[in-house]
Amino acid sequence: MEEELILAGMAAIMRKSEEFGDDGGAFRLGDVWVVVTNDMLVESTDVVPSMSPEDVGFKVVTMNASDLAAMGAKPGFFAFSAGFREGDAEFAKRLFRGINEGLERYGMNLISADTNNAKELVVDGVAIGFAKNLLRRSKAKPGQLVCVTGELGRPLSALLVELKGFSAAKSVRERLMEKLLRPVARVEEGLRLSEVVGCAIDVSDGLVKELKAIASASGVGIVIDPARVPVCDEVREFCEENGLDVSEVAMNSGEEYELVFTIDREKLGELDFDFAVIGRVVEGEGVWVEEGGKRVEARDLSWRHFSDWFAG
Amino acid sequence: MEEELILAGMAAIMRKSEEFGDDGGAFRLGDVWVVVTNDMLVESTDVVPSMSPEDVGFKVVTMNASDLAAMGAKPGFFAFSAGFREGDAEFAKRLFRGINEGLERYGMNLISADTNNAKELVVDGVAIGFAKNLLRRSKAKPGQLVCVTGELGRPLSALLVELKGFSAAKSVRERLMEKLLRPVARVEEGLRLSEVVGCAIDVSDGLVKELKAIASASGVGIVIDPARVPVCDEVREFCEENGLDVSEVAMNSGEEYELVFTIDREKLGELDFDFAVIGRVVEGEGVWVEEGGKRVEARDLSWRHFSDWFAG
Repeated sequence: MEEELILAGMAAIMRKSEEFGDDGGAFRLGDVWVVVTNDMLVESTDVVPSMSPEDVGFKVVTMNASDLAAMGAKPGFFAFSAGFREGDAEFAKRLFRGINEGLERYGMNLISADTNNAKELVVDGVAIGFAKNLLRRSKAKPGQLVCVTGELGRPLSALLVELKGFSAAKSVRERLMEKLLRPVARVEEGLRLSEVVGCAIDVSDGLVKELKAIASASGVGIVIDPARVPVCDEVREFCEENGLDVSEVAMNSGEEYELVFTIDREKLGELDFDFAVIGRVVEGEGVWVEEGGKRVEARDLSWRHFSDWFAG
Repeated sequence: MEEELILAGMAAIMRKSEEFGDDGGAFRLGDVWVVVTNDMLVESTDVVPSMSPEDVGFKVVTMNASDLAAMGAKPGFFAFSAGFREGDAEFAKRLFRGINEGLERYGMNLISADTNNAKELVVDGVAIGFAKNLLRRSKAKPGQLVCVTGELGRPLSALLVELKGFSAAKSVRERLMEKLLRPVARVEEGLRLSEVVGCAIDVSDGLVKELKAIASASGVGIVIDPARVPVCDEVREFCEENGLDVSEVAMNSGEEYELVFTIDREKLGELDFDFAVIGRVVEGEGVWVEEGGKRVEARDLSWRHFSDWFAG
């Protein structure tokens, strides 16, 4: 429902700030951009059984810190509103502990908080950061390379194991779960990127979805070499064992909190962190995968696509 | 559960900003205070049947604009995260319309938004404003007068009619409901107050609760003359008809979004809006009502107190 809602409903909201609709919004104050993001976590759709209350708390901070990173902002302050089921005080305490771990990790301070009773757990996080130069999804230019930090595929693989009974050896399962339960936002990388490039987005919904957002906002096409999308051994092993296409898994795995960015080739040397070049920006539109000289449109695959694979 | 949670859980969050725990938090940027507030509305606890989706949207903006007003901040930006029941797209559109009405009313622009599926409606609003001087609940001083804007009692009376079957003539009922459904934040009054006084709070949980917050944060006592608490004719009529104590209703009615402030007597003339002097700040502690020379501790009465009155 999310896309439909945003399209239909947001049109009713005429009063939007000038910088609205990226990973976060922003306004200028003196010579600083103040970046604001908010991201809500809902128990019935976002929490898996293996997550501890501390994991939930940490993740809400990470989700929001990652949006700041994708805008090139240094984390400053965090706020949250939480709804707890009646009698969930112990859960709440542990969740707060996880939030505090997140604040420590990203160097943020709590500026406001609100707690309520609700029928299920909901935690809305708000992050405020500061940027000299904003990274925007609309700034990709034909001729640039497309890059991504870290590796992709673990959260989706972990969900298939956790919720759908896909098989994985214990050590593989642990490594997959690690990133689902405790993803970390690429805050330092985002800050460095803001000094070198203009376009970035974080991988919260899956690489293909994020690339489509860049392509559409920038008015460009993107061509990906799926063999270059970085994947760890455990995801490879998991996909092999379960008959899944490893690059399909990697390119549709969400909650990764890796950063995707575009960069002029001659600037590659200015980045002092690990990343992979996975494709290039071209004239045109859409997101494409190119293998053996053949170019086909990248498939934005839903969770159902992968879970049905198993059922079939 | 709210108080218990905040006390027990918040202690686990060590990383708090310097200005935390008032109606909102704040940080300085150059010579400006950036004020941040967030306030969540949950269907099962905060929404009554008569509220339209537009009312809900407008109220979420008002709740947060009111917190800015209580800090003396000019509203700037608004963000929200919403969880909707599956298939609630029409509701969502109308809620967004109400949010837009709120943004128009308070001169704010939307800076960030997130929508999700959830088991019940939850809307978390976030407001960002700018202040030259912060109003704080900790700044009341013995000798000052205690004042309040507008009149009190309508929202609680309306809830008793709407949810508990208390009786009210149609015209009375309409006037009571008006403030429950479409309360308005005292933004202009808050801005003016920030130039004249140091201490304010908004009436979201009821006058007695707010006065206790001021007394405890400021280390003072407060004495109220209940006969001076402003009440409209319809609340008087409603209380008479239902055998309720009118000042008890007025002093425990929440979601009023009036501003309570303390002020030196000689500065009263500097305020160019309507308000009532209802009491004074004294040395000591606690909140007291004084009638006919007798002083008794003010009762912070729960919703149950009033609804049971009816059942009994």
